[in-house]
Amino acid sequence: MTKHILVTGGAGYIGSHTCIELLAAGFQVVVLDNLCNSSPEALRRAAALAGVESIPFFEGDILDATLLGRIFNEYPIDSVIHFAGLKAVGESVEKPLAYYDNNVAGTVTLLQAMQQHGVKNIVFSSSATVYGDPHTTPIQEDFPLSATNPYGRSKLMIEEILGDLYKADPEWKIGLLRYFNPVGAHRSGQIGEDPQGVPNNLMPYIARVAVGQYEHLSVFGGDYPTHDGTGVRDYIHVVDLAKGHVKALEAFQRGDVPNLLIVNLGTGQGYSVLDMVKAFSAASEREVPYRIVARRAGDIASCYADPALAEQLLHWKAEKNLVDMCRDTWHWQSTNPRGYH
Amino acid sequence: MTKHILVTGGAGYIGSHTCIELLAAGFQVVVLDNLCNSSPEALRRAAALAGVESIPFFEGDILDATLLGRIFNEYPIDSVIHFAGLKAVGESVEKPLAYYDNNVAGTVTLLQAMQQHGVKNIVFSSSATVYGDPHTTPIQEDFPLSATNPYGRSKLMIEEILGDLYKADPEWKIGLLRYFNPVGAHRSGQIGEDPQGVPNNLMPYIARVAVGQYEHLSVFGGDYPTHDGTGVRDYIHVVDLAKGHVKALEAFQRGDVPNLLIVNLGTGQGYSVLDMVKAFSAASEREVPYRIVARRAGDIASCYADPALAEQLLHWKAEKNLVDMCRDTWHWQSTNPRGYH
Repeated sequence: MTKHILVTGGAGYIGSHTCIELLAAGFQVVVLDNLCNSSPEALRRAAALAGVESIPFFEGDILDATLLGRIFNEYPIDSVIHFAGLKAVGESVEKPLAYYDNNVAGTVTLLQAMQQHGVKNIVFSSSATVYGDPHTTPIQEDFPLSATNPYGRSKLMIEEILGDLYKADPEWKIGLLRYFNPVGAHRSGQIGEDPQGVPNNLMPYIARVAVGQYEHLSVFGGDYPTHDGTGVRDYIHVVDLAKGHVKALEAFQRGDVPNLLIVNLGTGQGYSVLDMVKAFSAASEREVPYRIVARRAGDIASCYADPALAEQLLHWKAEKNLVDMCRDTWHWQSTNPRGYH
Repeated sequence: MTKHILVTGGAGYIGSHTCIELLAAGFQVVVLDNLCNSSPEALRRAAALAGVESIPFFEGDILDATLLGRIFNEYPIDSVIHFAGLKAVGESVEKPLAYYDNNVAGTVTLLQAMQQHGVKNIVFSSSATVYGDPHTTPIQEDFPLSATNPYGRSKLMIEEILGDLYKADPEWKIGLLRYFNPVGAHRSGQIGEDPQGVPNNLMPYIARVAVGQYEHLSVFGGDYPTHDGTGVRDYIHVVDLAKGHVKALEAFQRGDVPNLLIVNLGTGQGYSVLDMVKAFSAASEREVPYRIVARRAGDIASCYADPALAEQLLHWKAEKNLVDMCRDTWHWQSTNPRGYH
């Protein structure tokens, strides 16, 4: 029997790509999303790309216990993939309570609903931000954890809550997937990242410069101890990331991984801001003007994953390279210059 | 004009004693309590002891945003003293979600309601548990923080949330009062600690042995590196603790303390389990039979406060000694052997 997976935040950037991979792998998908930073159009397109008529969709919030109860009563949910959450670092510094409410309290509400309905499998959208300012790279899963802002702290708190839940009831199967920097888009160019307002992340910003929406890119810091002085990150193609979630569910089904499964999802390869600018220029055949400006508080020089554990436990590794990431982002951005609008 | 203080958990052990001290200091008091571990009788008696007809009381939960809105609309609340929360370490290990929901999500809901109503003064009931397993004693406020169980983690998370809130809006005045081990009762014997079921803490357990409700006390560990091998803690009289809260409010009014005020409330004096047994026997003139049993996981040998900062900033220090603590506990326990029932 095909299993039903509840995908919270399933209309979002990573969520919509994951729905496609879940359907391709033979799972049934139910989406809960409050659309605060996503579009129902992404779900319609994801359904079309996956060759299904539609994806069952509930517009609403993980803080809404009544709605959660309705979903668990209506569908025989086997597992939850939990993407829903606010994700802008700067905004989290300004409005910490919104982050603790939506992310932390929202997750607790979701977990209580799962517990009440006997659903004990969850894959959580964590982040490399939980490593704080790591002392060395590549980053391994047993590195010390810390947070440098409320967004990161909310992710860390959720990891701790899930760890305590596992200790209280080891029947739970809990995946903490620590993402590095998701970029790229579906190769069709039909779905991709559509941030509201000014993008917080590098790749969508570069894409908007290339498409002429912004004049130039501000590069925060040119004097980091990296090969060209700009910050180095581990960029991972969103489709690779989406597949990692499917692999985590499949690993839990096989039962050959720890019930509390903590893995990095990254490529293991670091690229600087200027590497990204060059690669994107080449892919788009456009200039991407940039200016080096002051460092941004809280940024670190270099951050990339050791992806070995994910390969060992999930039989997963990133397959798409920097050219794929830039080409697919450009395809999405140039055919949808205003996103889903 | 007298200021209105909303006391969450105001019918509880520390809350009810604090209501009396607030009223004595000229504040008006409004209580919100869900009575999950407290009795309305405590509030009635607190009102009588304070010489007021009654204390305005809302039965309900800090997770109930609608009720919070009603209270803030109905009363001109100046500050909140926030006691409401679950507090049993063992239960928190079994039911972590209940702790993260009531304590963390509940506090976030309360803070959002305060923000919406422009109330930006809060004194929070934190705990020495946030010091985890301290390397040295006495414990100072700048010691590293950690948690050893979900109860402690919920306190630590709330401290972090409040710290982020202060960074986002420095107009907030936030007191984090880290209690050591509250014991004792009002000297009238009218109100005191009334734990439901088997007490989690030493003093009420000893009291129930003395009153004949239990046969003997189990002492967890007799081989700690302390003067008699049993664990050493910093016991503080609940009336001293209650006065510390009033002093924190008054310090915020004077404005001569940091807006993010973090202080230990303890005596600075450590007593062992056997010290407490002896002192209680003397105060009650009863035998307190005990047996040394195995150490309890997660317990530490010795924990007592450096109370200097509280004295410096709040002009507060504990005034009651071990004899007071035992006498008042015994008075309460012997005249109310079944608590408020």
